[in-house]
Amino acid sequence: MANHIVLLSLVALSFCYLAFAFEPSPLQDFCVADPTSSARVNGLACKNPMTVQANDFFFSGLHIAGNTSNPIGSRVTPVNVAQIPGLNTLGISMVRIDYAPWGINPPHTHPRASEILTIVEGYGNAVAIASLSSQNPGVITVANAVFGSNPAIAGDILAKAFQVDKKIVEHIQSKF
Amino acid sequence: MANHIVLLSLVALSFCYLAFAFEPSPLQDFCVADPTSSARVNGLACKNPMTVQANDFFFSGLHIAGNTSNPIGSRVTPVNVAQIPGLNTLGISMVRIDYAPWGINPPHTHPRASEILTIVEGYGNAVAIASLSSQNPGVITVANAVFGSNPAIAGDILAKAFQVDKKIVEHIQSKF
Amino acid sequence: MANHIVLLSLVALSFCYLAFAFEPSPLQDFCVADPTSSARVNGLACKNPMTVQANDFFFSGLHIAGNTSNPIGSRVTPVNVAQIPGLNTLGISMVRIDYAPWGINPPHTHPRASEILTIVEGYGNAVAIASLSSQNPGVITVANAVFGSNPAIAGDILAKAFQVDKKIVEHIQSKF
Amino acid sequence: MANHIVLLSLVALSFCYLAFAFEPSPLQDFCVADPTSSARVNGLACKNPMTVQANDFFFSGLHIAGNTSNPIGSRVTPVNVAQIPGLNTLGISMVRIDYAPWGINPPHTHPRASEILTIVEGYGNAVAIASLSSQNPGVITVANAVFGSNPAIAGDILAKAFQVDKKIVEHIQSKF
Amino acid sequence: MANHIVLLSLVALSFCYLAFAFEPSPLQDFCVADPTSSARVNGLACKNPMTVQANDFFFSGLHIAGNTSNPIGSRVTPVNVAQIPGLNTLGISMVRIDYAPWGINPPHTHPRASEILTIVEGYGNAVAIASLSSQNPGVITVANAVFGSNPAIAGDILAKAFQVDKKIVEHIQSKF
Amino acid sequence: MANHIVLLSLVALSFCYLAFAFEPSPLQDFCVADPTSSARVNGLACKNPMTVQANDFFFSGLHIAGNTSNPIGSRVTPVNVAQIPGLNTLGISMVRIDYAPWGINPPHTHPRASEILTIVEGYGNAVAIASLSSQNPGVITVANAVFGSNPAIAGDILAKAFQVDKKIVEHIQSKF
Repeated sequence: MANHIVLLSLVALSFCYLAFAFEPSPLQDFCVADPTSSARVNGLACKNPMTVQANDFFFSGLHIAGNTSNPIGSRVTPVNVAQIPGLNTLGISMVRIDYAPWGINPPHTHPRASEILTIVEGYGNAVAIASLSSQNPGVITVANAVFGSNPAIAGDILAKAFQVDKKIVEHIQSKF
Repeated sequence: MANHIVLLSLVALSFCYLAFAFEPSPLQDFCVADPTSSARVNGLACKNPMTVQANDFFFSGLHIAGNTSNPIGSRVTPVNVAQIPGLNTLGISMVRIDYAPWGINPPHTHPRASEILTIVEGYGNAVAIASLSSQNPGVITVANAVFGSNPAIAGDILAKAFQVDKKIVEHIQSKF
Repeated sequence: MANHIVLLSLVALSFCYLAFAFEPSPLQDFCVADPTSSARVNGLACKNPMTVQANDFFFSGLHIAGNTSNPIGSRVTPVNVAQIPGLNTLGISMVRIDYAPWGINPPHTHPRASEILTIVEGYGNAVAIASLSSQNPGVITVANAVFGSNPAIAGDILAKAFQVDKKIVEHIQSKF
Repeated sequence: MANHIVLLSLVALSFCYLAFAFEPSPLQDFCVADPTSSARVNGLACKNPMTVQANDFFFSGLHIAGNTSNPIGSRVTPVNVAQIPGLNTLGISMVRIDYAPWGINPPHTHPRASEILTIVEGYGNAVAIASLSSQNPGVITVANAVFGSNPAIAGDILAKAFQVDKKIVEHIQSKF
Repeated sequence: MANHIVLLSLVALSFCYLAFAFEPSPLQDFCVADPTSSARVNGLACKNPMTVQANDFFFSGLHIAGNTSNPIGSRVTPVNVAQIPGLNTLGISMVRIDYAPWGINPPHTHPRASEILTIVEGYGNAVAIASLSSQNPGVITVANAVFGSNPAIAGDILAKAFQVDKKIVEHIQSKF
Repeated sequence: MANHIVLLSLVALSFCYLAFAFEPSPLQDFCVADPTSSARVNGLACKNPMTVQANDFFFSGLHIAGNTSNPIGSRVTPVNVAQIPGLNTLGISMVRIDYAPWGINPPHTHPRASEILTIVEGYGNAVAIASLSSQNPGVITVANAVFGSNPAIAGDILAKAFQVDKKIVEHIQSKF
């Protein structure tokens, strides 16, 4: 395992441990998510338990490499309650992260989870498996949230916050 | 209440609702924080209950205006478990925020709390009272965390993350 | 800030720290309350996220003095999930309390929150802002709950509990 | 209270303390379960509060002895949210356990509760009252879960797990 | 089971469901309370696990009738973490309540637990077993907390709160 | 990925989702475990924050194959708070599981975590990475807990529970 990749991982990790929340335990044996339910609740409503199948607890696809041909040179493949409805109320999920050489996972936080990450392969091209303590951890990519929000945060506010000229702020905003 | 101030508040609020956590309930009638305890635990150890006084639940000073003569034109006066040891395990705290005209509270998150905020006075100079759902909400000021971390995040990583030239990154880093 | 008001506040506070609970964290980015939902759940169901507006996180009115012309000489103006639907699942709320001279906030508990309180103005007429660690803290006013419950608690039970003559109990009950 | 019964109780208890979870607190004054609700959620949806009655918080029948004429010589009479809908979100339930002489409560765990148990009568025939920290504690009877699951766990897997001949496994499986 | 006792139970129950909290789950297999530990924490510190014994999970004495020769004609025998150190972090406890004829359990709340109660014997003299969802549920007896607090709540405050003459307040206060 | 391995994984998973708990969130920015602390608490006490190092959040060794030369033909390499003290209070951990051909991970539950598992390599010899929603998930291997407990569960109790002859019970007990 090369130092380069370790550093990338630590960047992600150093952000992730700072912001996270907790998942209430399930209140019955299982509550497989029903995204089509008309009942909108904190989390997701459950399917009729009579229609639950083994497949609701299964996902195939983590062996497929993510496409890293993008400006940041990395790709996250999530496996959370949106991919495995059986994860609903269970407080756990996974991601596969593919890194191109010199690729990065940009600074971000997960508002509802802590994270643990291991490199499973490579140091030029590399693959990591990470796990998060939520079935729906969420993600706030800092650059997007600050410079790409809609409606935009006013340029003079960001200029003060980052202590730079407003033109630099507008330049960064134009990228998002 | 002027629109200007409302907008500033919304900036803070829009960040705050995204990242927060929960506080376990107390397991006894009170657990007044003892910051000098040799027992280091999740949260803070408790004082000997025999030495608890009414004063442990009291703080005087929120009537004092914060000094806003600084680059961002605002000042936060916190009242959390560090100021009121009796708040330990109670999951609540307050802050007073003073704004100079055109002052801002820079983009930030509270990793362990949600926040509610009211302007109590003014629109040129203004004073807000906010409350957070933690006795120790923490704060991550985005600009500091990204551009002022120690050790620093490598400039080429930030250049990719913010999609700007590395020189701009180094320029921003020099301010923190 | 006069001693008189401080004492009143402490009465409220000394009750509040004794009884409170916790709010599960949100399981998605937001869950704005939909009080009209046919789904009745622990807490409140969420609006369709496509219909959420900035206004769902906003309330105007805390600058309006409460009417204290009543037997106890105080008035509580709540700002919780009933007033700000965006507070749903966020575990925080506020109240404004107006006190007339010699007014009181009668002994009560909040079954689902702890509370922090600051006097923002006055000592004859006074205004306080308090915050509670729940979007729906609830309130049990002791005198009402004991002497004004419906159906009533039998007079001889209360006579024993308060160790007074049953006639005194009936006298107090007649006030509620 | 005879030693024999105490030992039986301890068997149950030694399993119970190992596996349990927690119940989120209620988010309103009460949420009486409505098992007929079309909203399927973690836990149970609530009845219309206007239709709640004192009876929703009451159950009669714990004075009736359970029928212990069965292979294990014991019978559990549960009183949880299925019997008392008012227990919903309250995190507590009870059971009555009847033991015939030499009867046992087979090894089991409660996935969502810890348990406390007291013998209220007898040592030949005996009656215990136990309480669990959940309105829906669940139960996994080890023998059933391992040897009686549907679909069955393959015999050679169980043979390795229990380090016995596959024929013994199939013999045990035939009983469930 | 006579109506009389049922009514008494309902009084207790109607108070109990209004105020309660939650217990964090254990973070290891067991944490038997060590009341002599110098580490004062939220809840109780744990014994050295090497010194834990079966006896730490056992209490004998619930078969002993409580002495009801007192003004309220009832007696509560608690079995919580103070009596069974092994209950620490397990979120459950029990009480035996003895009632003399016409005895009552005065209005109270448990700030950290919900409660379930069953009459196990009698209707003139009666015995109940109740269970609470906390190893340390706490108790606030309303009459004591309001009229017997130390320092006392000022008589004119209570006179307003209960809407009676201050002399009646002082009369009640003299009993506590 | 071969069906054979998938089935083994599902056996583990089908047990794991049934029993789990929750971890209280951290109450400060980090609480790196100090296993040598004299303060024994629910979870683990924290190191002096001044002595925390990047290394406290790092573990090297998941690339090393586990030794599967044992009766069950599998090996679990854990990475939890015992291996990474920085995981303390963060509610997440990982394991590597090595399977020999026809190896199994015997039926078990994790009393304080749910689990997600992915096969990262192989179908004859195979390697899985699993993650658990606790820094200290615990494990109860059913066969050991039932037939290998110390002191032993009496043979006639197990004979009834598993509905087999006592000699078969004693035969199984002799293996543990």
